[in-house]
This record gives sequence, structure tokens and C-alpha cells, in this order.
Amino acid sequence: MKKIRISVIGGHAPSDECYELAYQFGKKAAEKDWQIICGGLGGVMEAVSKGVSEAGGEVIGILPSEDFHSGNQYLTFSVATGLGWMRNALVVMNGDVVVAIDGSYGTLSEISYAKIMNKKVFSLSSWDIDGVKKVKDLEELIREIEDFLNAQL
Amino acid sequence: MKKIRISVIGGHAPSDECYELAYQFGKKAAEKDWQIICGGLGGVMEAVSKGVSEAGGEVIGILPSEDFHSGNQYLTFSVATGLGWMRNALVVMNGDVVVAIDGSYGTLSEISYAKIMNKKVFSLSSWDIDGVKKVKDLEELIREIEDFLNAQL
Amino acid sequence: MKKIRISVIGGHAPSDECYELAYQFGKKAAEKDWQIICGGLGGVMEAVSKGVSEAGGEVIGILPSEDFHSGNQYLTFSVATGLGWMRNALVVMNGDVVVAIDGSYGTLSEISYAKIMNKKVFSLSSWDIDGVKKVKDLEELIREIEDFLNAQL
Amino acid sequence: MKKIRISVIGGHAPSDECYELAYQFGKKAAEKDWQIICGGLGGVMEAVSKGVSEAGGEVIGILPSEDFHSGNQYLTFSVATGLGWMRNALVVMNGDVVVAIDGSYGTLSEISYAKIMNKKVFSLSSWDIDGVKKVKDLEELIREIEDFLNAQL
Repeated sequence: MKKIRISVIGGHAPSDECYELAYQFGKKAAEKDWQIICGGLGGVMEAVSKGVSEAGGEVIGILPSEDFHSGNQYLTFSVATGLGWMRNALVVMNGDVVVAIDGSYGTLSEISYAKIMNKKVFSLSSWDIDGVKKVKDLEELIREIEDFLNAQL
Repeated sequence: MKKIRISVIGGHAPSDECYELAYQFGKKAAEKDWQIICGGLGGVMEAVSKGVSEAGGEVIGILPSEDFHSGNQYLTFSVATGLGWMRNALVVMNGDVVVAIDGSYGTLSEISYAKIMNKKVFSLSSWDIDGVKKVKDLEELIREIEDFLNAQL
Repeated sequence: MKKIRISVIGGHAPSDECYELAYQFGKKAAEKDWQIICGGLGGVMEAVSKGVSEAGGEVIGILPSEDFHSGNQYLTFSVATGLGWMRNALVVMNGDVVVAIDGSYGTLSEISYAKIMNKKVFSLSSWDIDGVKKVKDLEELIREIEDFLNAQL
Repeated sequence: MKKIRISVIGGHAPSDECYELAYQFGKKAAEKDWQIICGGLGGVMEAVSKGVSEAGGEVIGILPSEDFHSGNQYLTFSVATGLGWMRNALVVMNGDVVVAIDGSYGTLSEISYAKIMNKKVFSLSSWDIDGVKKVKDLEELIREIEDFLNAQL
């Protein structure tokens, strides 16, 4: 059976608190055997990749450049696209669920694409947009994702 | 000298009032010799194209499909992309200024890309997002665009 | 009625002879009221744009970069894509017929996409590929295009 | 250390002989611990995926559609792109070396992109293009790839 995939989106320059949240989410996700999809670069993307990597999980980075070596060091696998910012659509396209942590306009473009594609989006310390479920902490995030996944079965 | 280009973004299914606003904006823009760039389809895209066309201006549609005949009937020129929703980035990439009228998540993705690309964005009856200038009516919109363009000279 | 569109593809660094062929083709195409679509940069793209421009026709450049000012000076209109070499697909997607003059692997990618999209492709001093019609000079090229277009009516 | 990646490109409807070649190449590649990148669909893509899968290796499919479930059943991991035929550029962008087996114009577009990106391309029962190394059988293919990789060290 195919694994659950969670797209994690967020900023290049998060606060220490948001970096830690993304890192802890990566660890939890790996423990639950969820694959993580992210943009493959720094900040929240690096934090979640590091968490997944340390917990022995799988994290795939979908990169803006043409160089598949341009991702962060924690990725299990990287995919170069040469699409620049348009690769944001691919990051959310490849998840069953989308989690936003921190983030600016790049993250907002990903939230928009996720909603266009009818994906469920959770926001932790990120944008507050109609149709996006705000959660207050990591525990609520994990519980909401599990409830959502269970409801799909 | 190259003409000023205004990207107009907005919903597929606007209210009558927003359709009229986009149509009137198209007429005004053509009178000022601004080229209009849009997504080439229906709703706000059709309304602005119709306004431009009736006033003898130029409107270019950047289409999601691979078929360059798939645009609305008022376009001066259409460009097929085969990119689906990713063509949204191209719509704002090709304007000096971005105007949002009405719209849902597709429009939000375009606002996000416009901000990523450091474009000036005006919102008329559309999303209220940090970094986007809200205007209350057509007169204020035209005046704000002119002020912005004059400040660039 | 919409105008006939001809996509012209070819090399960045053509021989003087091929530059002249592209330039003369641009002039002829403008006289016949065909719109020219090209990649918007130098070499064969510049040559055909110059010919069209001098003859008062219309030539649209579909550019690889995100900057719509990055095209050659002869373009009637430019479209930025930010797609890099992937914009090659858009160049042929937007023509009714494709003409290759000179060219290397970029041109070969365009010929490939044209054939995938079931477009008619003419080759003048360019690649000799199954399914592509070789022509020996400008007169034969023009005649073959006209025969092809007449057969579509 | 990151694994060697081989992009395998080829036709949707290969002869039985070419299907078998791709399948056997997949098995050999997995034994050598090379990751395989392919277009994720049928024909040569399926054959190589099946070979890799049976030999316990890793094969990544880069898909044209927006649906990451649309790949063949043998993929270790799939990446949806929504790019249609433009995803061909991504298939070759993500390999250290490119192997063409059988194939038509889609494969030719991939060979073109591989050459634009200065990738080494091997052709087995596929296109005969300047700059592409023809090989006559599986043994020569494996030997040539190994010689090429060794020369990079």
C-alpha cells in the first residue's frame, strides 16, 4: 500500500520557534510513516527535512532550480524542476494533505494552489485564509491530520 | 516606446457588479493606451477583454490549455501554455502592475506570485492581503495606477 | 477572422546565409499577413523578427526568462514565461505551422514538440528528421506553406 | 553518498524486444544500485520500472498529469507535475546519464533536452542523432555507462 504523503510548506527565514515546530513535526510524521514532500531548500523546508531524516523517515524535495544537487542535506530524494516559483504548485500537488508553518507570499501561493486542487490545508503560525484550518499547536495539528485521514477511509 | 502593461486578474463567476467594474476598467485602460494582460477565459477576464476590445485597445490572453483558440472572443492575441493553473504565474509576470477584481483561490495565487515578483497590486472588491493596496472604486483605481506609474518615471 | 500563425524556430548563432533566409522569410510572411511566433531572442529569432518588423507585420516572442523586456528589439509583443528551455514547447504550441531554419538541440526539441502536437513542420537548412518536410529554398518554403494552408480550408 | 541516477526514456508502445531490453536494463541497474528516473507511465517506462522493482531497486516516475496516483504499479515513488509533455525536460534533468530505448517524438524531445543540458546520452534501438552514443546491446550499454561514470570520478 502507498504511504500517506504530507506536503509541508513554509518560510525561508522562520523564527526559532517555527523552525522548531517544523523540525518536531518532521519527527512525528516519520514516526507515523507519513512521507513528507517539501520545497527542498532552507528554513521550514530544512527543519522538517532534518526532523524526518533523524527519525529515519522519507522526505522528498521538489526544487526550483535545474540542479538536483541544490537541495538541503536532509532530503531522502530530490527532484529538480527548473520551474522557479512555479514549482510551488508541484509541492502541494504531490501531497494528500498540506501543512503550512510560518511563511510569506511563496507559502500563500502554495496555499492557493492547494485550495484550487481541493486539498485539505492546515495552518500553524501561518496565513489565516478562508478555507484553511488554523491549529494552535503541534498536538492539535497531528490530531487534526489523523482525524482527516481517518475520515477518508 | 513600449506600452504600459496592466495584468488584470479575477474570478470566473463574478457578480454582475464586478463584471461591470472589469468591463469599465477595460474601456478606461484602452483609452489610456495601456495594454491588458489576462488569463483569457471567462468572467472578469472576459469582461475586461470586452471593454478593451470595444474601446479599440489591445488585450492579450495567456491560456491554461494547449489550444490557442480556447480564449474568449474579445482577445487581440492569445498565448496557449499547456500549464494549467501554473499559467497564473505568467499572467502577473507579464504586467507592470496587477489589478485584482473579485476572484477566489486562483486570483489569490496570482496575487501571491505578483508579490513574490515585487509587482504593485491593487485590489478592487477582491482579496484583502498584507502588501496589497485596496481601492474602493474605479476612479480611485485609475488614480492610484497613474500615481504609481508617474512615480516610476 | 484570426490570422494565420507561423512558429519560426532556429539557432542562436546561424550562418550569415541562414540569418538572411530567416530575415527574408520574415518579410515575406508579413506581406502575406501571417503572424510570426518565435522564441524572442537572437540569431534566427532576431532575423525573422527584423524582417517582420521592417515589413510592418506582427511578431510575438515567447521568452525563457521572467523579464518581458528581455526580447530582441524587433518584437511587436513579448511574453515572459520563466520556464527556461521548457518554453520551447510554447513556441510551437502557438503556431498553425512550424518552420525550422538552422538550429541545434533547442530547435530539435521544438521539432519534437511540434510533431507530438501533430503540427506540420518545414525544415530549411535545419534538422532532417522523419516526419519533417525538407525544403531547399525560400520559394519552395512559401509555396509549401501555402499549399498546406489551402489544403486545410 | 548520493546514488547514481539514470534517466531512462523510451516509447509508450515498444516492440517485445525493446520491452525486454528495458526490463533487463532495470534489473541490471538495480543490481548496481543505480536509481532509475523515468516518465512513470507504460511501455519502456513500465518495463524498466518492473525490472527495477523485481530486483529490489528504486525507480522514480515523473508524471505528466496532476495525479500522483497515475503512474505504473512498479514505481517506488511518483511525482505529479501537471506539465503534460513539458515534464519530459524534468525526466532528463534528474539523471546523471540518459538512456534511450526505442521511442518516438517524445523520446526525441528528451534526447534534445538532455543534450541542451550537456548530459551524456546512450541510444539502444532508439534515435540516431549527432552527439548521442549508439550502443548495440545491453552489455555494451552497461559497459559504456560504467566507463562514463568512472571517467567522472
